[in-house]
Amino acid sequence: MKRFMNSADDFVDEMLEGLCAAYPGFALDPQDRRVVRRASPAGHGKVGIASGGESGHLPLFTGYVGPGLLDSCAIGNVFAGPTVGSCIAAIKAADAGRGVLRLYGNYGGDRMNFDLAGEMLEGDIRTTTVLGTDDIASAAPEEARKRRGVAGILYAYKTAGALAEEGADLDSIAEIAARTVARSRTIGCALTPCILPGASAPTFAIGEDEMEMGMGIHGEPGIWRAGLKPADEVAEEMVTRLLAEIPDGSDGRVSMLVNSLGSTPLEELLILFRKARAVLDEKGLRLVQPLVGPYVTSLEMGGASISLLHLDDELERLLAAPCDCPFWKV
Amino acid sequence: MKRFMNSADDFVDEMLEGLCAAYPGFALDPQDRRVVRRASPAGHGKVGIASGGESGHLPLFTGYVGPGLLDSCAIGNVFAGPTVGSCIAAIKAADAGRGVLRLYGNYGGDRMNFDLAGEMLEGDIRTTTVLGTDDIASAAPEEARKRRGVAGILYAYKTAGALAEEGADLDSIAEIAARTVARSRTIGCALTPCILPGASAPTFAIGEDEMEMGMGIHGEPGIWRAGLKPADEVAEEMVTRLLAEIPDGSDGRVSMLVNSLGSTPLEELLILFRKARAVLDEKGLRLVQPLVGPYVTSLEMGGASISLLHLDDELERLLAAPCDCPFWKV
Repeated sequence: MKRFMNSADDFVDEMLEGLCAAYPGFALDPQDRRVVRRASPAGHGKVGIASGGESGHLPLFTGYVGPGLLDSCAIGNVFAGPTVGSCIAAIKAADAGRGVLRLYGNYGGDRMNFDLAGEMLEGDIRTTTVLGTDDIASAAPEEARKRRGVAGILYAYKTAGALAEEGADLDSIAEIAARTVARSRTIGCALTPCILPGASAPTFAIGEDEMEMGMGIHGEPGIWRAGLKPADEVAEEMVTRLLAEIPDGSDGRVSMLVNSLGSTPLEELLILFRKARAVLDEKGLRLVQPLVGPYVTSLEMGGASISLLHLDDELERLLAAPCDCPFWKV
Repeated sequence: MKRFMNSADDFVDEMLEGLCAAYPGFALDPQDRRVVRRASPAGHGKVGIASGGESGHLPLFTGYVGPGLLDSCAIGNVFAGPTVGSCIAAIKAADAGRGVLRLYGNYGGDRMNFDLAGEMLEGDIRTTTVLGTDDIASAAPEEARKRRGVAGILYAYKTAGALAEEGADLDSIAEIAARTVARSRTIGCALTPCILPGASAPTFAIGEDEMEMGMGIHGEPGIWRAGLKPADEVAEEMVTRLLAEIPDGSDGRVSMLVNSLGSTPLEELLILFRKARAVLDEKGLRLVQPLVGPYVTSLEMGGASISLLHLDDELERLLAAPCDCPFWKV
């Protein structure tokens, strides 16, 4: 595999050093160099928000540390979750005396390590957990809590981050994050795999003329695999599947994220967006603050995901509130 | 080739429709749907800045239309320059009575069509031209004016755009753009080619374990082709080549853009950035406002470029001035 790297072993640490060298808003935690925190912590009076996850998905997770978003982030090796120690360090880094929300995607290893970290800090730091579970292809609607977290977690970062910046308490912030997750839906469509640094084989195999609807960001099996279809057909199916589950109380306001999984160029995202937006318009939905770009990737994986967040007054307000990191400024 | 598209013939028009559907700041020109303009034109009192070029390089060119940057942009087919008609429409769209700077990359076809457009508008709209010529691998220093324009043109968009927003006249803006180009240097390093929509073969061939230093963004021949080298070695060579030509009057302040040519992930850009920054630090240069990301791409081409802009007081001030488009906010 062709990459700009020095060695697979140093890939993550050098990437994190580069991140902090490029952007003065990020700092590595002095206790644990697999934790990225704000260079200027928010300080007293603010509930902290800590996230974490695997390397290989930039700008997720570490890229979203900043005012109006996360306070800290624990990061693991490529496609491997953070250690318990990094989860503890991330929670400590986010703590300013009013408790910490642990906000991350629903993956077994991450859950185990973040839960253990929360238990070990019990008595010292009050924490609570909200899990991203937006991938509709990963479990049926009746089992929505079992779904994996993918690109839609960005919306929870944004709304919870904005409310925390306003000085709300931990319970209110956890409620907003949970509400955001409950009103977010994502589906992906994969074209080509990626290869992990140092590995010799791709993460999955797929035919030269095939695509897979619903495939997860690590190649988890999707809904169907078939020959390539026109972009409009793909976009329409994705949006239709997302709209098959409308959360209670939705009034037709949605935000939409059309996201590249890595090597899929912006040109193609915009072609997908064009049709996805037309489908929303036809159905009388009102689009608010759309996002298009590489927000949650899997190295050079080819494909795209579409996420919808069904807004209410408070979510719309929080989505429009200021935030500031190199990859998302409002 | 696997793509999200409907047909190669519709690729560009649908991409532009998607761009305008996603971002309310962009509008297609009513006279020519291959011209993107600000949805809210700056209006009287401001010199216009028009650019243009091929499709396939997003966010360049059209993505950089917005306050503090471009007023309009003419866009061609994938890897083909805009028509004379689109160049005329872009200049007209940028005109608010005080003249228009034509600011684009040094490619024969673009030059011919923009020059013809300027001649046809003579007497109606005063225009002047500044060409991006930052690719150091494309001609020797003695023939710097013959160099191709690549990612470094962004810096000229930024400084000229900021000065225009302040109300400066056309000559001053052209001088700043020309000074910015003269103080910008870029070099690329390619790993893998892209495939044009509808084509069956890649734009160039390169071995499975090879890289090419200095290759252009369309696969133009570079300086050497050899087996893969460690990222640190590549970054050090790129920066060293860039610093072999220091413009007169430089005092050591530089901005640096580490840019993905398409499929190269942000993780790898940061690994390159880490070493590139270390080289600048060793040489006592002071880094100002670095940029890392997919700013100027060639569809899914693999590789990266590094650009340096040698600052002076005015350029540093203009680089830090506000700008607002979806892909670059200051």
